[in-house]
Amino acid sequence: MTQIKLFCPATIANLSCGFDVLGLCLDNAGDEMIVRKVAEKGVRITKIEGANLPMETEKNVSGVAALAMLATLDVDCGFEIEIYKHIKAGSGIGSSAASSAGAVFGINELLGRPYSRKELVQFAMQGEKLASGNAHADNVAPALLGGFTLVRSYAPLDIIRIDSPEELFATVVHPQIELKTSDARSVLKQTVSLKSAIMQWGNVGGLIAGLYTKDYDLIGRSLHDEIVEPLRSVLIPGFDQIKQTALENGALGSGISGSGPSIFALSRGIDTANQIAKAMSDVYEKMNLPYEIHVSKINPDGVRIL
Amino acid sequence: MTQIKLFCPATIANLSCGFDVLGLCLDNAGDEMIVRKVAEKGVRITKIEGANLPMETEKNVSGVAALAMLATLDVDCGFEIEIYKHIKAGSGIGSSAASSAGAVFGINELLGRPYSRKELVQFAMQGEKLASGNAHADNVAPALLGGFTLVRSYAPLDIIRIDSPEELFATVVHPQIELKTSDARSVLKQTVSLKSAIMQWGNVGGLIAGLYTKDYDLIGRSLHDEIVEPLRSVLIPGFDQIKQTALENGALGSGISGSGPSIFALSRGIDTANQIAKAMSDVYEKMNLPYEIHVSKINPDGVRIL
Repeated sequence: MTQIKLFCPATIANLSCGFDVLGLCLDNAGDEMIVRKVAEKGVRITKIEGANLPMETEKNVSGVAALAMLATLDVDCGFEIEIYKHIKAGSGIGSSAASSAGAVFGINELLGRPYSRKELVQFAMQGEKLASGNAHADNVAPALLGGFTLVRSYAPLDIIRIDSPEELFATVVHPQIELKTSDARSVLKQTVSLKSAIMQWGNVGGLIAGLYTKDYDLIGRSLHDEIVEPLRSVLIPGFDQIKQTALENGALGSGISGSGPSIFALSRGIDTANQIAKAMSDVYEKMNLPYEIHVSKINPDGVRIL
Repeated sequence: MTQIKLFCPATIANLSCGFDVLGLCLDNAGDEMIVRKVAEKGVRITKIEGANLPMETEKNVSGVAALAMLATLDVDCGFEIEIYKHIKAGSGIGSSAASSAGAVFGINELLGRPYSRKELVQFAMQGEKLASGNAHADNVAPALLGGFTLVRSYAPLDIIRIDSPEELFATVVHPQIELKTSDARSVLKQTVSLKSAIMQWGNVGGLIAGLYTKDYDLIGRSLHDEIVEPLRSVLIPGFDQIKQTALENGALGSGISGSGPSIFALSRGIDTANQIAKAMSDVYEKMNLPYEIHVSKINPDGVRIL
């Protein structure tokens, strides 16, 4: 095998109470990539469609992730990468993570799997570092592993993958405004009240318990963010109304995807997820705001070969 | 049935990262109680052995919990309570919770179980309110339900019971000094850094995941308290040495039980738990500090009929 074509899924990070630690993998929103093994050493980005991104390896997240991985291996070949972007940059559903994850996954396959999917996370994180200045794992982990992922710790890196209950679906709406990551960061406070923090870790515990026991009600009761959502949601037009609409239409919970501006809702069953999509659409139609919307089951596999 | 004899277990609350939300139930440390149905209405404490506690119903935690429960029921009888204390007050392993839980459990049995064990928690919490000024549930919930309990939320009260992995054992050492709850509280800070809070809820997530998957290593990796232990441990003589000793002797993790002064360690298998008990004892022997020590499996049932 010298060439591989991949689906590189979008992901939701900062999942409500699980700010900075919990993410999930989407199934029908994502990019495609082709990774090719070639004689000439090094990594080259040979094609990018669907987005205006740098072709220089060292300036492209997939290139940086690939280089970080290859620096740990003694290989006698090189790799070409073609990227077909469908996830919009800055949408808050892991556009850069999809590219970073796809690059390292593809190379790993072409090299006969020197690394496990979990081991690939550390390399994909280097792409995230290029994209945001911070080598975070909460998008690349679900992109590589599928399901839900908990980043328990960064030092040392400790990632726990959790199966999604089968009937869980996500609805994600992307209001097409630009929300700068720097703005989304600047509204955060560096200290939080002990009381809010306790509520937050109670909910993280409840959410994890709900996932393991497939208790949809408990998942819903736990999907609250006491700390970040109140600060960030004001940057997203219509957030309160979208969330309220989602809950009124049967969502288990709703919140900001990543650092926004996308808003997600989780629900039980695709019918409810579709109904929520329609209701969310109505809100942004009335506001005359362009938007994209996705309804997706939780992707159990992460990046996959097409 | 007009009389019931009960074992009322000791409990560990504030379990490391799970400050204020996570507790577990011990199996061979606890009180005994006798609850008797009598014709005369009301609740009377007729005997207390092993501790110098108030006999007046309204001043005794078991009396207050019983009255809170009976206020919700229309019953044509009364109850007498005998308490045989073995758990020392102020030890940090849920002495008042054992009495509150026992009283409401016993009355519930004698009345033909109008309430589930989970429903009894709210009444037992009223005993805790008398004892500490705060109607907390993190000792009464494991005392009533057994296993591990997560208090996801207080408003509304939402408690999740989690089975313990079968090979998990607790070692608890109680250095016999007085640690006032007010002192243990005064050292807490009302704000915490966002960074520490994120590490804490990552660990809560990891601990819950470890319990569901019976992953002892993950349980161990998650048993860290970034926030409270560094502040409170200075009030407990020998804390650092006891914890270090526990870890060196194979403990998965170790921390403060409740608000102290007891220190717990969790380990896999009774042999390790016993070895830790011996090593902890050696530390306090050398310090010439009186102590009590318990080795216990995790009690799967909570309060039980003898």
